Amino acid sequence: MPDHLRTPGGADVPYGQPAQHEAAVIRTEAREAGFSVWRTPLQHQRGIITPSGLHFAVHHNGIPDIDPARHQLFLNGLVEQPLRLSWDRLQRYPMVSRVHFLECAGNSAANALSPFAMDLPLGQLAGEVSSSEWTGIPLSLLINEAQPKPNAKWVIAEGADAGSHARSLPLQELHKHGILALFQNGERLRPSQGYPMRLFVPGWEGNANVKWLHRLEFSDVPAHTKDESGLYTQVLADGRIQRFALTMEVKSLITRPSGQQNMPTPHGFFEIEGFAWSGRGRIVRVDVSVDGGRTWAAAHLDSPVLDRSFTRFSLPWQWQGKKSVLMSRATDEHGHTQPTRGVWKSRYAAHSFNHYNAIQSWSVSRDGRVENTYA
Amino acid sequence: MPDHLRTPGGADVPYGQPAQHEAAVIRTEAREAGFSVWRTPLQHQRGIITPSGLHFAVHHNGIPDIDPARHQLFLNGLVEQPLRLSWDRLQRYPMVSRVHFLECAGNSAANALSPFAMDLPLGQLAGEVSSSEWTGIPLSLLINEAQPKPNAKWVIAEGADAGSHARSLPLQELHKHGILALFQNGERLRPSQGYPMRLFVPGWEGNANVKWLHRLEFSDVPAHTKDESGLYTQVLADGRIQRFALTMEVKSLITRPSGQQNMPTPHGFFEIEGFAWSGRGRIVRVDVSVDGGRTWAAAHLDSPVLDRSFTRFSLPWQWQGKKSVLMSRATDEHGHTQPTRGVWKSRYAAHSFNHYNAIQSWSVSRDGRVENTYA
Repeated sequence: MPDHLRTPGGADVPYGQPAQHEAAVIRTEAREAGFSVWRTPLQHQRGIITPSGLHFAVHHNGIPDIDPARHQLFLNGLVEQPLRLSWDRLQRYPMVSRVHFLECAGNSAANALSPFAMDLPLGQLAGEVSSSEWTGIPLSLLINEAQPKPNAKWVIAEGADAGSHARSLPLQELHKHGILALFQNGERLRPSQGYPMRLFVPGWEGNANVKWLHRLEFSDVPAHTKDESGLYTQVLADGRIQRFALTMEVKSLITRPSGQQNMPTPHGFFEIEGFAWSGRGRIVRVDVSVDGGRTWAAAHLDSPVLDRSFTRFSLPWQWQGKKSVLMSRATDEHGHTQPTRGVWKSRYAAHSFNHYNAIQSWSVSRDGRVENTYA
Repeated sequence: MPDHLRTPGGADVPYGQPAQHEAAVIRTEAREAGFSVWRTPLQHQRGIITPSGLHFAVHHNGIPDIDPARHQLFLNGLVEQPLRLSWDRLQRYPMVSRVHFLECAGNSAANALSPFAMDLPLGQLAGEVSSSEWTGIPLSLLINEAQPKPNAKWVIAEGADAGSHARSLPLQELHKHGILALFQNGERLRPSQGYPMRLFVPGWEGNANVKWLHRLEFSDVPAHTKDESGLYTQVLADGRIQRFALTMEVKSLITRPSGQQNMPTPHGFFEIEGFAWSGRGRIVRVDVSVDGGRTWAAAHLDSPVLDRSFTRFSLPWQWQGKKSVLMSRATDEHGHTQPTRGVWKSRYAAHSFNHYNAIQSWSVSRDGRVENTYA
């Protein structure tokens, strides 16, 4: 008889933590282009909420330690009424809560760039995407209060980190969809997510959702900051540059089984599971193939199916113990669907890697090992 | 210029934590009837997800330290096919994810029992309720596999804690609504929530959702365990005993402003906010009064409005700097609505305190202090 049935259990703590047996379920760090990239172990996530402690993060300049009592948000530039907003004042505005995914522009870069399919666990391959309930003030309220001048078309959003990460964003879209996010999954933002406040625009690439936000400057032209003229542009196949392409496209990932996992038995019933999302709206359909794209079956979508959020899909599969190639292909409410890797590559220059949303394939060997593949 | 604008920020960690400036946002412990009760600081929660670290917990015998690799779930008694299920085997079943509240039967006991309204922060007054995304296996799958005999009407659910907390639950309801919960908010259950597995029946009182679940025994009669013949019964006003009344009734709480808070300015605009929920279904309406129940206005319900989940409500209020009494009254899709405290008290014996769902009132003094009141 185990000890825990005989003797009273341990004490609880004021702020709970995961079980010690789950110590391996953590984010993995990679240093890339001078950035610190922390990826969500998506292969362990069940349900559409990513625990805040496991939310992906890309840090251009580390995590600033900001005293919320001293932090202020400025709205200035081409406005009739410049605003300086403290935390206390912001508390008085109405807030909305929405479950949305957030994805780094460069997620799945390895699949975009590497000439061979890198054998990695899902989290390390494509874990720069997570999903949370975000709560904050609709930006329209603050923008209306600041009264932009007629020639204001852009807003330069700047963070209070040492690198002053900044992005130029179209005012009209920001007014329509933007949130000044103050809470994540019911509590104040974590420091690595922009404490005490960040910009959040559902569906837009991660770095546009400026963390540690302290300034929104209204302008008639974009600022061409280092963060938008450099890394976060997209080079098309014909050499033209695509800029301010902010929306993340429809995408899906099978999480079980996925890279470096093993099928649990030589053969038999297995529930294929995964996530789908689109920066343009709701997911309406996910097709799954177990034969490398020859035939497809519509997966079950688990409710709730929310706008610009992770949607869970699943499909029962009777594995015959044979080599198989699993794929998922999501379609959103606007009819956008995922391209094959070949089609995606043909659209962009060879060194482009942002906004990669091609179909992810997993090969299952006869002995049940699961591995990333381009097949 | 603050330091964080001049020097690169700090490093991130594999499993993120809240900001150090939020160290006061924690659960508070109370020792009651030999139990350890940890309450959610609801006054700080924005959004319908309670962070797992702040989820309420009631421990009858501490937290057992269970090795998930050795833990097994038994289905036995009046079944054709007894089952012994390991974690690995359970992984192969289809799972569902649902956002649901969970509330202790004894939540708000102070308001039920105390002859005067105790002046406490909301969390300490009524923080034995939280809301999470729960992911697990529909119990119907496991029950069908075990094949209950025709005379099986009850299931005795038993936990693997030293006290062997156990409840007798009606098989038909369990089959229809029950989940074997393995994940909470995207990750494995926390130890204080029943790691590695718990029973979860949306809408049922907390202790029926047996934590550290290791046995479901099918029976023709209830077991009359200590946990159901004692504390968790309800004594009606005429002395009769109400047992197996498992469903938590419709309820709401204004979280802002709430107990021991201060209105931010002498007077002016304020967004009243709170949560409503019902163990019977969706919330369809929340009425708010700022004059002690004389007049009521329909609050705005923030989407998504989910079945047996926290629903956010809000109402803008122009506070005139006068003494006011705030109340909220929720109604669910079956037409159930919250009683006044007087009506609730008239239904039960004087010492009854379980399933308290009367309207919560907050008085606001002229100097802006907010306090619990029975007015």
